[in-house]
Amino acid sequence: MSRGILLVLSAPSGGGKTTILKKVMAGLPGLVFSVSHTTRKPRPGEQDGRDYYFVSRQEFESIRDRHPSGFLEWAEVHGNLYGTSRAAVEQRLGGGRDVILDIDVQGAAQIRQSADPVTVFIAPPSLAELEARLRGRGTENEQTLALRLENAKQELAAMDLYDYLVVNDRLDEAVESLRSIIIAERCRRRRTVDGVPVQVVF
Amino acid sequence: MSRGILLVLSAPSGGGKTTILKKVMAGLPGLVFSVSHTTRKPRPGEQDGRDYYFVSRQEFESIRDRHPSGFLEWAEVHGNLYGTSRAAVEQRLGGGRDVILDIDVQGAAQIRQSADPVTVFIAPPSLAELEARLRGRGTENEQTLALRLENAKQELAAMDLYDYLVVNDRLDEAVESLRSIIIAERCRRRRTVDGVPVQVVF
Repeated sequence: MSRGILLVLSAPSGGGKTTILKKVMAGLPGLVFSVSHTTRKPRPGEQDGRDYYFVSRQEFESIRDRHPSGFLEWAEVHGNLYGTSRAAVEQRLGGGRDVILDIDVQGAAQIRQSADPVTVFIAPPSLAELEARLRGRGTENEQTLALRLENAKQELAAMDLYDYLVVNDRLDEAVESLRSIIIAERCRRRRTVDGVPVQVVF
Repeated sequence: MSRGILLVLSAPSGGGKTTILKKVMAGLPGLVFSVSHTTRKPRPGEQDGRDYYFVSRQEFESIRDRHPSGFLEWAEVHGNLYGTSRAAVEQRLGGGRDVILDIDVQGAAQIRQSADPVTVFIAPPSLAELEARLRGRGTENEQTLALRLENAKQELAAMDLYDYLVVNDRLDEAVESLRSIIIAERCRRRRTVDGVPVQVVF
Protein backbone atom coordinates (compact mmCIF):
# COMPACT_ATOMS: atom_id res chain seq x y z
CA MET A 1 0.00 0.00 0.00
CA SER A 2 1.27 3.45 -0.82
CA ARG A 3 1.81 6.08 1.81
CA GLY A 4 -0.75 8.88 2.06
CA ILE A 5 -0.24 12.59 1.54
CA LEU A 6 0.00 15.02 4.44
CA LEU A 7 -2.08 18.03 3.42
CA VAL A 8 -1.76 21.26 5.38
CA LEU A 9 -4.52 23.79 4.86
CA SER A 10 -4.49 27.36 6.13
CA ALA A 11 -6.89 30.23 5.64
CA PRO A 12 -7.78 33.40 7.46
CA SER A 13 -11.15 33.07 9.17
CA GLY A 14 -13.89 34.09 6.76
CA GLY A 15 -11.93 32.52 3.91
CA GLY A 16 -14.57 29.81 3.54
CA LYS A 17 -12.22 26.96 4.39
CA THR A 18 -14.69 24.85 6.34
CA THR A 19 -17.34 24.83 3.61
CA ILE A 20 -14.77 24.04 0.90
CA LEU A 21 -13.24 21.22 2.93
CA LYS A 22 -16.60 19.60 3.70
CA LYS A 23 -17.52 19.54 0.03
CA VAL A 24 -14.15 18.17 -1.06
CA MET A 25 -14.16 15.43 1.59
CA ALA A 26 -17.73 14.42 0.69
CA GLY A 27 -16.68 13.82 -2.91
CA LEU A 28 -13.24 12.31 -2.57
CA PRO A 29 -12.65 9.03 -0.69
CA GLY A 30 -9.44 8.34 1.21
CA LEU A 31 -9.19 11.68 3.05
CA VAL A 32 -9.22 11.94 6.83
CA PHE A 33 -8.96 14.81 9.23
CA SER A 34 -6.21 14.80 11.77
CA VAL A 35 -7.54 14.70 15.33
CA SER A 36 -5.68 17.10 17.63
CA HIS A 37 -4.65 16.64 21.24
CA THR A 38 -5.86 19.31 23.64
CA THR A 39 -5.77 20.10 27.33
CA ARG A 40 -9.09 21.95 27.06
CA LYS A 41 -12.06 20.28 28.77
CA PRO A 42 -14.52 18.49 26.46
CA ARG A 43 -17.68 20.45 25.63
CA PRO A 44 -21.09 18.76 25.69
CA GLY A 45 -21.32 16.33 22.77
CA GLU A 46 -17.58 16.24 22.09
CA GLN A 47 -16.10 12.77 21.98
CA ASP A 48 -12.56 11.73 22.88
CA GLY A 49 -10.69 10.43 19.82
CA ARG A 50 -13.22 11.91 17.41
CA ASP A 51 -13.26 15.66 18.11
CA TYR A 52 -10.01 15.76 20.08
CA TYR A 53 -7.79 13.57 22.16
CA PHE A 54 -8.48 15.11 25.56
CA VAL A 55 -5.39 14.91 27.74
CA SER A 56 -4.05 16.48 30.94
CA ARG A 57 -1.48 19.24 30.75
CA GLN A 58 1.09 16.88 32.22
CA GLU A 59 0.37 14.24 29.58
CA PHE A 60 0.49 16.88 26.81
CA GLU A 61 3.82 18.22 27.98
CA SER A 62 5.33 14.76 28.21
CA ILE A 63 4.38 14.05 24.57
CA ARG A 64 5.57 17.49 23.48
CA ASP A 65 8.95 17.30 25.20
CA ARG A 66 10.14 14.02 23.65
CA HIS A 67 13.02 14.13 21.19
CA PRO A 68 11.89 14.38 18.49
CA SER A 69 8.76 16.03 19.79
CA GLY A 70 5.64 13.85 19.81
CA PHE A 71 3.82 16.77 18.19
CA LEU A 72 4.32 17.90 14.60
CA GLU A 73 3.10 21.28 15.78
CA TRP A 74 1.58 22.69 18.93
CA ALA A 75 0.34 25.99 20.31
CA GLU A 76 -1.16 27.53 23.42
CA VAL A 77 -4.44 29.35 22.84
CA HIS A 78 -6.35 31.08 25.65
CA GLY A 79 -4.42 29.03 28.21
CA ASN A 80 -5.15 25.67 26.57
CA LEU A 81 -2.61 23.55 24.72
CA TYR A 82 -3.35 22.11 21.28
CA GLY A 83 -1.13 19.78 19.28
CA THR A 84 -0.97 17.42 16.29
CA SER A 85 0.36 14.02 17.28
CA ARG A 86 3.17 12.77 15.06
CA ALA A 87 2.30 9.12 15.82
CA ALA A 88 -1.41 9.53 14.98
CA VAL A 89 -0.60 11.24 11.67
CA GLU A 90 2.09 8.67 10.79
CA GLN A 91 -0.29 5.80 11.46
CA ARG A 92 -2.92 7.20 9.08
CA LEU A 93 -0.35 8.06 6.37
CA GLY A 94 1.18 4.60 6.68
CA GLY A 95 -2.28 3.12 6.20
CA GLY A 96 -2.55 4.91 2.86
CA ARG A 97 -4.91 7.66 4.03
CA ASP A 98 -4.38 11.25 3.00
CA VAL A 99 -4.41 13.29 6.19
CA ILE A 100 -5.71 16.86 6.30
CA LEU A 101 -4.42 19.30 8.89
CA ASP A 102 -6.39 22.49 9.29
CA ILE A 103 -3.93 24.84 10.99
CA ASP A 104 -2.78 28.44 11.00
CA VAL A 105 0.38 29.78 9.37
CA GLN A 106 2.47 29.36 12.52
CA GLY A 107 1.44 25.70 12.80
CA ALA A 108 2.17 25.16 9.11
CA ALA A 109 5.65 26.61 9.60
CA GLN A 110 6.28 24.12 12.45
CA ILE A 111 5.08 21.18 10.33
CA ARG A 112 7.43 22.06 7.47
CA GLN A 113 10.38 21.65 9.84
CA SER A 114 9.92 17.95 10.45
CA ALA A 115 7.53 16.59 7.83
CA ASP A 116 7.05 16.93 4.07
CA PRO A 117 3.55 18.31 3.74
CA VAL A 118 1.67 19.58 0.69
CA THR A 119 0.56 23.04 1.75
CA VAL A 120 -2.48 24.92 0.49
CA PHE A 121 -3.50 28.46 1.35
CA ILE A 122 -7.15 29.41 0.86
CA ALA A 123 -7.52 33.14 0.41
CA PRO A 124 -10.49 35.43 0.02
CA PRO A 125 -10.43 37.34 -3.28
CA SER A 126 -9.60 40.57 -1.40
CA LEU A 127 -9.50 42.08 2.06
CA ALA A 128 -12.61 44.13 1.23
CA GLU A 129 -14.46 40.90 0.42
CA LEU A 130 -13.19 39.28 3.62
CA GLU A 131 -14.48 42.24 5.65
CA ALA A 132 -17.85 42.03 3.90
CA ARG A 133 -18.07 38.31 4.72
CA LEU A 134 -17.19 38.81 8.37
CA ARG A 135 -19.72 41.65 8.65
CA GLY A 136 -22.31 39.46 6.88
CA ARG A 137 -22.09 36.94 9.73
CA GLY A 138 -23.22 39.70 12.06
CA THR A 139 -21.60 37.91 14.99
CA GLU A 140 -18.71 40.24 15.82
CA ASN A 141 -18.45 43.73 17.22
CA GLU A 142 -16.25 46.38 15.61
CA GLN A 143 -13.32 45.63 17.87
CA THR A 144 -13.29 41.88 17.18
CA LEU A 145 -13.76 42.57 13.49
CA ALA A 146 -10.78 44.91 13.40
CA LEU A 147 -8.70 42.29 15.20
CA ARG A 148 -9.74 39.53 12.80
CA LEU A 149 -8.88 41.69 9.80
CA GLU A 150 -5.50 42.54 11.27
CA ASN A 151 -4.82 38.82 11.86
CA ALA A 152 -5.96 38.05 8.32
CA LYS A 153 -3.53 40.60 6.90
CA GLN A 154 -0.68 38.97 8.80
CA GLU A 155 -1.72 35.50 7.65
CA LEU A 156 -1.99 36.61 4.02
CA ALA A 157 1.61 37.77 4.18
CA ALA A 158 2.62 34.12 4.67
CA MET A 159 0.77 32.99 1.54
CA ASP A 160 3.92 32.76 -0.56
CA LEU A 161 5.30 30.00 1.66
CA TYR A 162 2.53 27.65 0.52
CA ASP A 163 2.75 25.24 -2.40
CA TYR A 164 -0.70 26.13 -3.71
CA LEU A 165 -3.00 29.10 -3.56
CA VAL A 166 -6.76 28.63 -3.85
CA VAL A 167 -8.68 31.87 -4.20
CA ASN A 168 -12.19 31.49 -2.85
CA ASP A 169 -13.99 33.77 -5.25
CA ARG A 170 -16.64 31.33 -6.48
CA LEU A 171 -17.27 28.43 -4.11
CA ASP A 172 -17.62 25.71 -6.77
CA GLU A 173 -14.34 26.74 -8.39
CA ALA A 174 -12.54 26.78 -5.05
CA VAL A 175 -13.89 23.29 -4.28
CA GLU A 176 -12.71 22.00 -7.64
CA SER A 177 -9.30 23.59 -7.16
CA LEU A 178 -8.72 21.92 -3.80
CA ARG A 179 -10.06 18.60 -5.09
CA SER A 180 -7.77 18.90 -8.12
CA ILE A 181 -4.73 19.62 -5.97
CA ILE A 182 -5.31 16.40 -4.04
CA ILE A 183 -5.89 14.31 -7.17
CA ALA A 184 -2.81 15.81 -8.84
CA GLU A 185 -0.64 15.17 -5.79
CA ARG A 186 -1.81 11.56 -5.85
CA CYS A 187 -0.60 11.31 -9.46
CA ARG A 188 2.69 12.86 -8.36
CA ARG A 189 3.32 10.93 -5.18
CA ARG A 190 1.73 7.54 -5.40
CA ARG A 191 4.10 6.29 -8.02
CA THR A 192 6.64 4.66 -5.80
CA VAL A 193 7.22 3.52 -2.28
CA ASP A 194 10.91 3.26 -1.55
CA GLY A 195 11.54 3.27 -5.27
CA VAL A 196 9.12 0.43 -6.03
CA PRO A 197 6.19 1.29 -8.31
CA VAL A 198 2.86 0.71 -6.65
CA GLN A 199 0.28 1.70 -9.23
CA VAL A 200 1.74 0.15 -12.31
CA VAL A 201 3.55 -3.15 -12.56
CA PHE A 202 5.16 -3.97 -15.89
CA MET B 1 -1.66 38.76 -17.40
CA SER B 2 0.01 35.72 -15.98
CA ARG B 3 2.19 33.45 -18.05
CA GLY B 4 0.78 30.10 -19.14
CA ILE B 5 1.98 26.63 -18.28
CA LEU B 6 3.98 24.50 -20.72
CA LEU B 7 2.52 21.02 -20.45
CA VAL B 8 4.41 18.09 -21.96
CA LEU B 9 2.42 14.90 -22.44
CA SER B 10 3.88 11.54 -23.41
CA ALA B 11 2.33 8.12 -23.76
CA PRO B 12 3.10 4.91 -25.59
CA SER B 13 0.72 4.43 -28.50
CA GLY B 14 -2.36 2.61 -27.31
CA GLY B 15 -2.19 4.50 -24.01
CA GLY B 16 -5.36 6.39 -24.86
CA LYS B 17 -3.69 9.81 -24.88
CA THR B 18 -5.66 11.31 -27.76
CA THR B 19 -9.08 10.50 -26.30
CA ILE B 20 -8.09 11.79 -22.85
CA LEU B 21 -6.67 15.00 -24.27
CA LYS B 22 -9.74 15.73 -26.38
CA LYS B 23 -12.03 15.36 -23.38
CA VAL B 24 -9.83 17.49 -21.14
CA MET B 25 -9.52 20.28 -23.72
CA ALA B 26 -13.26 20.28 -24.35
CA GLY B 27 -13.93 20.92 -20.66
CA LEU B 28 -11.16 23.31 -19.69
CA PRO B 29 -10.73 26.72 -21.36
CA GLY B 30 -7.34 28.33 -21.84
CA LEU B 31 -5.54 25.29 -23.28
CA VAL B 32 -4.01 25.26 -26.72
CA PHE B 33 -2.09 22.67 -28.67
CA SER B 34 1.35 23.56 -29.87
CA VAL B 35 1.56 23.55 -33.67
CA SER B 36 4.73 21.84 -34.92
CA HIS B 37 6.93 22.77 -37.83
CA THR B 38 7.50 20.03 -40.39
CA THR B 39 9.25 19.48 -43.70
CA ARG B 40 6.69 16.87 -44.69
CA LYS B 41 4.29 17.84 -47.50
CA PRO B 42 0.75 18.80 -46.43
CA ARG B 43 -1.86 16.07 -46.85
CA PRO B 44 -5.27 16.85 -48.32
CA GLY B 45 -7.25 18.95 -45.85
CA GLU B 46 -4.24 19.94 -43.75
CA GLN B 47 -3.87 23.66 -43.21
CA ASP B 48 -0.66 25.61 -42.71
CA GLY B 49 -0.53 27.14 -39.22
CA ARG B 50 -3.34 24.95 -37.95
CA ASP B 51 -2.15 21.36 -38.42
CA TYR B 52 1.52 22.19 -38.94
CA TYR B 53 3.73 25.00 -40.08
CA PHE B 54 4.87 23.54 -43.40
CA VAL B 55 8.41 24.65 -44.18
CA SER B 56 11.26 23.64 -46.48
CA ARG B 57 14.16 21.62 -45.16
CA GLN B 58 16.41 24.64 -45.59
CA GLU B 59 14.04 26.84 -43.59
CA PHE B 60 13.74 24.15 -40.88
CA GLU B 61 17.48 23.79 -40.57
CA SER B 62 18.02 27.52 -40.35
CA ILE B 63 15.55 27.74 -37.43
CA ARG B 64 17.05 24.66 -35.80
CA ASP B 65 20.66 25.80 -36.01
CA ARG B 66 20.25 29.18 -34.32
CA HIS B 67 21.84 29.67 -30.91
CA PRO B 68 19.86 28.99 -28.85
CA SER B 69 18.04 26.66 -31.22
CA GLY B 70 14.74 27.99 -32.58
CA PHE B 71 13.24 24.60 -31.69
CA LEU B 72 12.56 23.43 -28.14
CA GLU B 73 12.82 19.92 -29.54
CA TRP B 74 13.07 18.37 -32.96
CA ALA B 75 13.37 14.93 -34.56
CA GLU B 76 13.66 13.26 -37.93
CA VAL B 77 10.99 10.64 -38.63
CA HIS B 78 10.86 8.66 -41.88
CA GLY B 79 13.05 11.27 -43.55
CA ASN B 80 10.92 14.23 -42.48
CA LEU B 81 11.87 16.80 -39.87
CA TYR B 82 9.47 17.82 -37.08
CA GLY B 83 10.08 20.50 -34.47
CA THR B 84 8.43 22.64 -31.80
CA SER B 85 9.13 26.33 -32.35
CA ARG B 86 10.39 28.11 -29.27
CA ALA B 87 8.99 31.45 -30.49
CA ALA B 88 5.50 30.07 -31.17
CA VAL B 89 5.33 28.42 -27.75
CA GLU B 90 6.68 31.55 -26.02
CA GLN B 91 4.11 33.74 -27.71
CA ARG B 92 1.22 31.57 -26.49
CA LEU B 93 2.63 31.24 -22.96
CA GLY B 94 3.20 35.00 -22.82
CA GLY B 95 -0.43 35.49 -23.84
CA GLY B 96 -1.52 33.51 -20.79
CA ARG B 97 -2.42 30.33 -22.67
CA ASP B 98 -1.43 26.93 -21.32
CA VAL B 99 0.34 25.14 -24.15
CA ILE B 100 0.15 21.37 -24.58
CA LEU B 101 2.94 19.49 -26.33
CA ASP B 102 2.19 15.92 -27.32
CA ILE B 103 5.64 14.38 -27.76
CA ASP B 104 7.61 11.22 -27.12
CA VAL B 105 10.09 10.64 -24.32
CA GLN B 106 13.07 11.79 -26.40
CA GLY B 107 11.31 15.06 -27.27
CA ALA B 108 10.36 15.54 -23.61
CA ALA B 109 13.99 15.08 -22.61
CA GLN B 110 15.03 17.81 -25.09
CA ILE B 111 12.36 20.21 -23.78
CA ARG B 112 13.54 19.80 -20.18
CA GLN B 113 16.96 21.09 -21.19
CA SER B 114 15.85 24.58 -22.14
CA ALA B 115 12.35 25.13 -20.76
CA ASP B 116 10.53 24.49 -17.50
CA PRO B 117 7.66 22.22 -18.50
CA VAL B 118 5.14 20.34 -16.39
CA THR B 119 5.49 16.78 -17.63
CA VAL B 120 2.81 14.10 -17.57
CA PHE B 121 3.16 10.47 -18.57
CA ILE B 122 0.01 8.58 -19.51
CA ALA B 123 0.47 4.86 -19.04
CA PRO B 124 -1.69 1.85 -19.71
CA PRO B 125 -2.43 -0.14 -16.55
CA SER B 126 -0.10 -2.92 -17.74
CA LEU B 127 1.75 -4.20 -20.80
CA ALA B 128 -0.79 -7.02 -21.11
CA GLU B 129 -3.58 -4.45 -21.28
CA LEU B 130 -1.63 -2.40 -23.83
CA GLU B 131 -1.21 -5.48 -26.02
CA ALA B 132 -4.91 -6.27 -25.72
CA ARG B 133 -5.77 -2.71 -26.80
CA LEU B 134 -3.42 -2.77 -29.78
CA ARG B 135 -4.80 -6.16 -30.85
CA GLY B 136 -8.32 -4.83 -30.36
CA ARG B 137 -7.69 -2.22 -33.03
CA GLY B 138 -7.03 -5.06 -35.45
CA THR B 139 -4.94 -2.75 -37.62
CA GLU B 140 -1.46 -4.19 -37.11
CA ASN B 141 0.22 -7.42 -38.08
CA GLU B 142 2.24 -9.47 -35.56
CA GLN B 143 5.51 -7.85 -36.55
CA THR B 144 4.27 -4.27 -36.15
CA LEU B 145 2.59 -5.24 -32.89
CA ALA B 146 5.81 -6.69 -31.49
CA LEU B 147 7.66 -3.53 -32.51
CA ARG B 148 5.07 -1.27 -30.89
CA LEU B 149 5.21 -3.27 -27.66
CA GLU B 150 8.99 -3.12 -27.64
CA ASN B 151 8.86 0.67 -28.14
CA ALA B 152 6.26 0.93 -25.39
CA LYS B 153 8.51 -0.94 -22.98
CA GLN B 154 11.33 1.47 -23.69
CA GLU B 155 9.06 4.48 -23.25
CA LEU B 156 7.68 3.14 -19.98
CA ALA B 157 11.21 2.98 -18.63
CA ALA B 158 11.34 6.79 -18.89
CA MET B 159 8.17 7.22 -16.82
CA ASP B 160 10.04 8.14 -13.66
CA LEU B 161 11.44 11.27 -15.29
CA TYR B 162 7.94 12.77 -15.47
CA ASP B 163 6.35 14.99 -12.83
CA TYR B 164 3.03 13.16 -12.94
CA LEU B 165 1.83 9.70 -13.83
CA VAL B 166 -1.72 9.17 -15.08
CA VAL B 167 -2.70 5.52 -15.33
CA ASN B 168 -5.36 5.05 -17.97
CA ASP B 169 -7.30 2.27 -16.34
CA ARG B 170 -10.73 3.87 -16.39
CA LEU B 171 -11.12 6.63 -18.99
CA ASP B 172 -13.20 8.99 -16.84
CA GLU B 173 -10.67 8.79 -14.01
CA ALA B 174 -7.76 9.41 -16.36
CA VAL B 175 -9.56 12.45 -17.79
CA GLU B 176 -10.18 13.84 -14.31
CA SER B 177 -6.56 13.20 -13.33
CA LEU B 178 -5.16 15.16 -16.27
CA ARG B 179 -7.71 17.94 -15.79
CA SER B 180 -6.81 18.06 -12.09
CA ILE B 181 -3.09 18.29 -12.82
CA ILE B 182 -3.68 21.34 -15.00
CA ILE B 183 -5.98 23.03 -12.47
CA ALA B 184 -3.54 22.29 -9.63
CA GLU B 185 -0.58 23.64 -11.61
CA ARG B 186 -2.56 26.80 -12.21
CA CYS B 187 -2.99 27.16 -8.44
CA ARG B 188 0.75 26.58 -8.05
CA ARG B 189 2.06 28.78 -10.80
CA ARG B 190 -0.35 31.59 -11.39
CA ARG B 191 0.39 33.26 -8.12
CA THR B 192 3.04 35.63 -9.25
CA VAL B 193 4.64 37.11 -12.32
CA ASP B 194 8.13 38.35 -11.56
CA GLY B 195 7.24 38.26 -7.90
CA VAL B 196 4.09 40.35 -8.28
CA PRO B 197 0.82 38.66 -7.30
CA VAL B 198 -1.63 38.49 -10.16
CA GLN B 199 -4.69 36.74 -8.75
CA VAL B 200 -4.96 38.39 -5.41
CA VAL B 201 -4.32 42.03 -4.64
CA PHE B 202 -4.42 43.06 -0.99
